[in-house]
Amino acid sequence: MSPTPYVTFFHAPHSRSGGTRALFEELGVDYDMHVLNFKTGTQRDPEYLAINPMGKVPAIRHGEALITEQPAVMMYLADLYPEKGLAPSLTDPLRGPYLRWMVFYGSCFEPAVVDRSMKREPAAKSTSPYGGFEDVMALVRAQVDQGEWWLGDRFTAADVLWGTALNWTVGFGLVPETPAMRAYIDRVMARPAMARAAQKDKALAASQEG
Amino acid sequence: MSPTPYVTFFHAPHSRSGGTRALFEELGVDYDMHVLNFKTGTQRDPEYLAINPMGKVPAIRHGEALITEQPAVMMYLADLYPEKGLAPSLTDPLRGPYLRWMVFYGSCFEPAVVDRSMKREPAAKSTSPYGGFEDVMALVRAQVDQGEWWLGDRFTAADVLWGTALNWTVGFGLVPETPAMRAYIDRVMARPAMARAAQKDKALAASQEG
Ligand SMILES: N[C@@H](CCC(=O)N[C@@H](CS)C(=O)NCC(=O)O)C(=O)O
Ligand SMILES: N[C@@H](CCC(=O)N[C@@H](CS)C(=O)NCC(=O)O)C(=O)O
Repeated sequence: MSPTPYVTFFHAPHSRSGGTRALFEELGVDYDMHVLNFKTGTQRDPEYLAINPMGKVPAIRHGEALITEQPAVMMYLADLYPEKGLAPSLTDPLRGPYLRWMVFYGSCFEPAVVDRSMKREPAAKSTSPYGGFEDVMALVRAQVDQGEWWLGDRFTAADVLWGTALNWTVGFGLVPETPAMRAYIDRVMARPAMARAAQKDKALAASQEG
Repeated sequence: MSPTPYVTFFHAPHSRSGGTRALFEELGVDYDMHVLNFKTGTQRDPEYLAINPMGKVPAIRHGEALITEQPAVMMYLADLYPEKGLAPSLTDPLRGPYLRWMVFYGSCFEPAVVDRSMKREPAAKSTSPYGGFEDVMALVRAQVDQGEWWLGDRFTAADVLWGTALNWTVGFGLVPETPAMRAYIDRVMARPAMARAAQKDKALAASQEG
């Protein structure tokens, strides 16, 4: 079922690439994993900068193509394995909302959370790409309130992205928790593939200690 | 050629929705345009907030689906009209890079430019979603240096996004211009559809004056 050539995944444990690892686990496909070590700084080695000049993870390579940016990596992988059903197809009415929420994550949610974590004022509401922190949180709350999964009835890659993101941002106290949000995070994280990915990532992080 | 129902486009002249207007012009398809007036603040009227609670443009509605976020709107439209060839197809080797650069725009370029325009320090390089301002600019320069269009030989929706974005950010002095960047912006803006969109948008802005 895996495309030739395999996808190579550049990963560091306990980082933004954890969501991609979880997505691979949900897809249940084979891939090559190249592990970076943030403790020794291998993401800034010339070898890795030649692959991704940003020195960031996640990144994937598929044939000649390099793909970076968590939402782009996830959209690419979910479309690469249509039979797994983790992305609404191009003609599905949920395709547009799916794209919206994948992009909203990086364009609005992350900048809002970064500003909050640095305790600094956002740009003026009308020019800030995300409006205000409360606007973003209101949309997030509406989304976890509306159904079982991010897009309603069906589990998709959007849940891998948002479930893992809310898990760590709520965990760090950056996003105010609501009961529905807690239930949503728990629902995502209780999935066997998600739990397996978290377990493996913990073991990988431990192997990099000392 | 236009899908039923028509796409409804929520637009304000001289704003981030200008790129979407240009994309419609490049696609050459019919659509319904709903114009908002930032001078009188109609984007914050309850009618519009019921459509997009962020009170932001661009937004499009297609059937029941609401799509926001410039890169998501553009990816959706380019895929909706595959015969126009403005998006690499799902099996095209350029699909991954296309997704990467569409997402990179909102996740890295805009936050870097916002921080710069507010004259504030980015987060620490390793936690900042975009690394540093110079990392982002180096990638942008590499991209305009590598070929005629953003993805190489072929004009795509990525050029509509990046051409319009570089046009205004260089224009405002937020992004340092290079000769290749200037040539790239001019190349994009000289396209008949792009020029037509800019002309129409200027007229629309004038009609909202006083
Ligand atoms: N905009 C990127 C951000 C990726 C990112 O910041 N990754 C961090 C890990 S959480 C990283 O690789 N940091 C290592 C470094 O910059 O040295 C995305 O969404 O993928
Ligand atoms: N993250 C959004 C940002 C959109 C945005 O900030 N649009 C501005 C226009 S440049 C807007 O609608 N501002 C009106 C307001 O907030 O009142 C995107 O990329 O589409």
